[in-house]
Order: sequence, then structure tokens, then C-alpha cells
Amino acid sequence: MSPKPPITGLSRRRWLAAVALSATLAACAPMAPSPVADPLPSWNTGANKQRIVDFVRAVGTEGSADYVKPADRIAVFDNDGTLWLEYPLYTQFRFVFDRIRELAPQHPEWQTQQPYQSVIAGDLKGAMAGGIKGMLELLGAAQSGLTPEQLEAVVKRWIDASSDPRFKRPYTELTYQPMQELLRYLRANGFKTYIVSGGTVDFMRAFTAPVYGIPSEQVIGTRQKFAFEVKDGQPSVQMLPQMEFNDDGPGKPVAIAALIGKRPIAAFGNSDGDFQMLQWTTAGAGKRLGMIVHHDDAQREYAYDRDSSIGKLAAGLDQYQAMGWGLISMKNDWKIVFAPPK
Amino acid sequence: MSPKPPITGLSRRRWLAAVALSATLAACAPMAPSPVADPLPSWNTGANKQRIVDFVRAVGTEGSADYVKPADRIAVFDNDGTLWLEYPLYTQFRFVFDRIRELAPQHPEWQTQQPYQSVIAGDLKGAMAGGIKGMLELLGAAQSGLTPEQLEAVVKRWIDASSDPRFKRPYTELTYQPMQELLRYLRANGFKTYIVSGGTVDFMRAFTAPVYGIPSEQVIGTRQKFAFEVKDGQPSVQMLPQMEFNDDGPGKPVAIAALIGKRPIAAFGNSDGDFQMLQWTTAGAGKRLGMIVHHDDAQREYAYDRDSSIGKLAAGLDQYQAMGWGLISMKNDWKIVFAPPK
Repeated sequence: MSPKPPITGLSRRRWLAAVALSATLAACAPMAPSPVADPLPSWNTGANKQRIVDFVRAVGTEGSADYVKPADRIAVFDNDGTLWLEYPLYTQFRFVFDRIRELAPQHPEWQTQQPYQSVIAGDLKGAMAGGIKGMLELLGAAQSGLTPEQLEAVVKRWIDASSDPRFKRPYTELTYQPMQELLRYLRANGFKTYIVSGGTVDFMRAFTAPVYGIPSEQVIGTRQKFAFEVKDGQPSVQMLPQMEFNDDGPGKPVAIAALIGKRPIAAFGNSDGDFQMLQWTTAGAGKRLGMIVHHDDAQREYAYDRDSSIGKLAAGLDQYQAMGWGLISMKNDWKIVFAPPK
Repeated sequence: MSPKPPITGLSRRRWLAAVALSATLAACAPMAPSPVADPLPSWNTGANKQRIVDFVRAVGTEGSADYVKPADRIAVFDNDGTLWLEYPLYTQFRFVFDRIRELAPQHPEWQTQQPYQSVIAGDLKGAMAGGIKGMLELLGAAQSGLTPEQLEAVVKRWIDASSDPRFKRPYTELTYQPMQELLRYLRANGFKTYIVSGGTVDFMRAFTAPVYGIPSEQVIGTRQKFAFEVKDGQPSVQMLPQMEFNDDGPGKPVAIAALIGKRPIAAFGNSDGDFQMLQWTTAGAGKRLGMIVHHDDAQREYAYDRDSSIGKLAAGLDQYQAMGWGLISMKNDWKIVFAPPK
């Protein structure tokens, strides 16, 4: 049986037109964004929100003097302290410490060897006494002897089972909601969003796609040495304990130039390790955007800057105005810090 | 005046439906590829063409056991000898030699110093006598003291003004038309296409976007050392003469793992420098495609393989069958090699 036809010629025409229109809209939904919705609902109205919106409009308006073609709309984001919680200890080091304890039974020599001994005893101050050199040794020990795929699986398992001691939530829920909106807003306007972080790439790649919508190939970070090997006819790439590249400070613009091959037009960071990345980005010709997230919200997150060993921000605080960068106040610019628990 | 209405209710309905259908198709054109057009018109019918089409269909069919989600459809291509002419001398070295001669007046010491002296005298055999070490020294001398953007401009100027001595055409027209079709075919089916080449990235980035439709961030190659510096308040990234990474042989899977962070599902090469890349790609779980372009066409291009110093192919010839790779015969599989002159 065929469906009952509409009664009049007119209503049948209207019905056909309505069917055609809804089919068109369904097929083309991504092409029809609403022009009225606020793309940054977690940002308070103010100079920083306005600066972002003005920038995106300017570079996205064809015929405008500031227009940038989509292929060159590259935006780079630091991760720790810019997109998610980093205080009082980088999340990657929470993983490294747990992993060292997990591996300890296979390494009896660690029981009497620093900095391993301190990590196993749960003495974090002792564990960090060796400074960056000691931390990188721990990181290499925790993240080697595996393929990158295997490490990703280990990190995923850990991150699903862990939670932050203060906020009692998984680390992947402790991303900054206003920055999540900013990532989506930029992508909706033709930007390609990259992470450029001091964290190591294979740690970050375990969560960047589901958490930030950023695929592994847009994750730039500190890199361990890799070696190609063939065992019993099976080829693999193995992670070695040595570091190959330190993606921090001047390393950030160097990595961007080497791996992306374009100077970004927007850069976001929170510490002096991001200074050169913002400096190089905003010194380019045409309209540029550089912004620093300032941790000034002890109540909802933390307040730290020039005296902190984690996320130290001194040069950035002293020079952001002269550099023409925006200083985002977590306390005043953001309605919420983290998304509410689901 | 309104347009003349159709005479009968039936024809009016048909007319409305036709208008609606054409509007839908026009709005959604990229979503409706023609199912009949041959996507690889320059390939002769045969096992290799069939293998490509079967692979693309299998990984792209949702619900099929071989289905791969678009984010994981990564295809990697060697450049020299796989996408464009490399014989009897890599095009990048033609550039390097010309650039050394251009820079010679600023380097009087080169007049009596090898391998520079030979290059300046036009003695290519002498220039190459120092082997890979001498070649890399020349490359470093030719491509340093500039920012990557400046080098790109120098390469563009050179490539626009140069042509191949045998074919009397610009090098950018000496790309293999069947491989160009393959790149487009893969992208039309949701693949992300990468170049993974022994050439240096900043040389290749001068032409990959217009010539192959591959943006700079999808170009992986040998990398020179870079340094960030600030002079008179102006930050820049400077290219140094030393090499940082050799993207050849086992370096290729290492670079792919480090920079893309995913194992490709398809790899294309032409020499033993691509062996490990194909080996690692095709050893992955699920359906994989590995193919080697065999230069067996002395008439339309060149014939060379195991005895050649440029593009040497011996291990690949001996093992491609055991590895399950396809060996593309330039002579038999390709209707044309280069696109006809415009």
C-alpha cells in the first residue's frame, strides 16, 4: 500500500517542498551554523573575550585586510596549565611516579638507587631533588622498552583509574572549559589547532583526541629517542630512555618551524616556557593573537606565577603588555574553570 | 510576472522534485562523487590497479571486516622516484649545486676547497666523490643562514627558473601523473596523505602544496638543525648547516611514529630507503597496502634498480613478493608517466 496522498495539489506541493528542504538541511547540517549562539559561553564579557572574537572575525573575513586563508590558520596551545591542570605537580609526573612503583619489582636495584628509592618510598620531595635531570631519568625509565602504541595503552589504563587528590576527579575532566570552547570555536572557524607542550608526545597522544578533539599528528611535544628494530621477522619502533628533543622555551618555535612548517597566527600559553612561542607567533606579519592564562584563582583552582617552580610566569607577566599579548585572568575572565561533573 | 506554471499537477510535482533534487546535489556536491568515473585513468587495467581499488574499497566500507575509520587512514609516500623524477640526480642536489655556485662569490675559500671547488667548476663527478658526507656538507652550506621561509622563497625562485636537461620541462611538471591520481583518489576516500622523504623538509615545502595538494605539515623529511634567536628585538628561527635527522631507511618509520603517532595503512616507495617504511606499515594488523614503483621504462623515463647509486632497489626486488607488496611497473602499469604539457 502507498502512503495516503495529501488532499490538494497545493498541500502536496508544500509537502514535497518541505521534504526536499529537510533532506537538504539534513545532508548539509554542518554547513549551517547558527549565527547567534555565543561560541564562548564560559567566558565573561570583557576585553579578553572581545579580543578573541575580534581576531577570529578579522582573519576569517574574506576581503578584509587581515584575512588569512584557512590553510594558514594555525593555532598552537601549550597543554599543562593552559588546557588542563598542572599544579602542584604535572600530571605526567604523577603517571611516571606510579609507573616507577609498578615496575619496581622488576628492578631490585632501584631500592637503593636515587631518585628511584624516593619514588618507591612515596617521598616526592626526595624524588624531585635531582631537578630536571633526575626527572627526565625517571621519565625515561618509566616510558621505555615499549612501542608508542603500548605506552599509549598503559597511559590510558592509568588515566582511567586515577584521580586528582584535591578535586577527586579524573585528570581528563580537569581541563579548562573556557579553553575547550576556544579550541572548538577556532576549529569551527577554519583553524587547525595544535598542542605544543613540554610533555612527551606519546603520553599526550593517549588522551588528546577524545579529550580535546586534537589528533595525534597535531600533538607536538618533548620526544624520546626511538629505534626501529626487527625481531623474529616482526618490525617495530621501540621507545628508548634517552630524550631526543626538549619542547620547551626556544624549543617550541623550533619544533613548530620544523614540523608544521608555518608560523602560527595564534598562540596560547601560561608559563615562561611558552614565551618564545608567543614571541615568534606574534612577531609575524598581519594580525596575530598571543594570550597567557594567569593562574590567579586559588579558590576554584590555584594562584601561582613568578615564584612557582611549576608553571613559573615572570617574563610573561613583566612583558605581556609591551608584547601586545592578552593576560587571561582565570578568576575574572572565566565563569567556570572545569566543566561540571557529568 | 511569475514564470509560466507547468500545465498539469503531475508535471508540476515532477518539476518541484527536480528542482529540489538539483538544489540538494548542488549544495552537497562533495558528498556525491560519481560512482562510474575511473579515479585512476592513467593506470592500465591489471593486478596493481585492482589491488589499489580493492584496498580503498575494503578499508572505506563501513561494516566490512577491513573497515578503518577515517582518522586512521594514513598513507605515506616517498617523494624522489615515487612521486617525481629523481634520476640521474636528485632534484634537490641540482638546486644545491646551483645555490653553491650562486653563493660562491661570498666564499672565496671555496675556490680551493673540495667538494665546493668541483661544484663551482661544474664537475659533478668530483662534487659527488665525497659520498653522502660530502653531499650533506654541500646541502648544509647551500641551505643555512636563512629562516625556513626565506629558503622556501629561494627554492621557489629556482624551481620556477629551472628545467630538466632531458625532458626540457620544469621539475614540478615531472611528477608521475598516475601517482598524482592515486594521491587524489586516496584523499577523496578520506585518507590523509603524507610525504616521507630523504629530501629536506624546507626544500620540499616550497612546492608540495601546489604540486601535490600536500600541506607543509604533512611533509616529513630529513631535517636540519634550527636555532631560535632574537636580533634587535626580532625573533626568528634560523637554519643551521648541521643535520638533525636523516629521514631514510629505518629513520622513516621512526619519524612517522614520532611525528604522526599512528602506523600508516598504506605506504608507497621506490627504493631500498623505503624498505623499513613499507615493512612497518604492512606488518600492522588489518588490511594494509605496500607498493613499490619500479623504474623499468628507459624510453619514457629511466630503467634502473639494483645497480644504481640513485634510487637503488635490491632488497625490495628480492623480497616484495614474500612481503606481499605490489611492484608497479612504470612500463606496463602506467598509460602515461608525466602529464602532457599544458
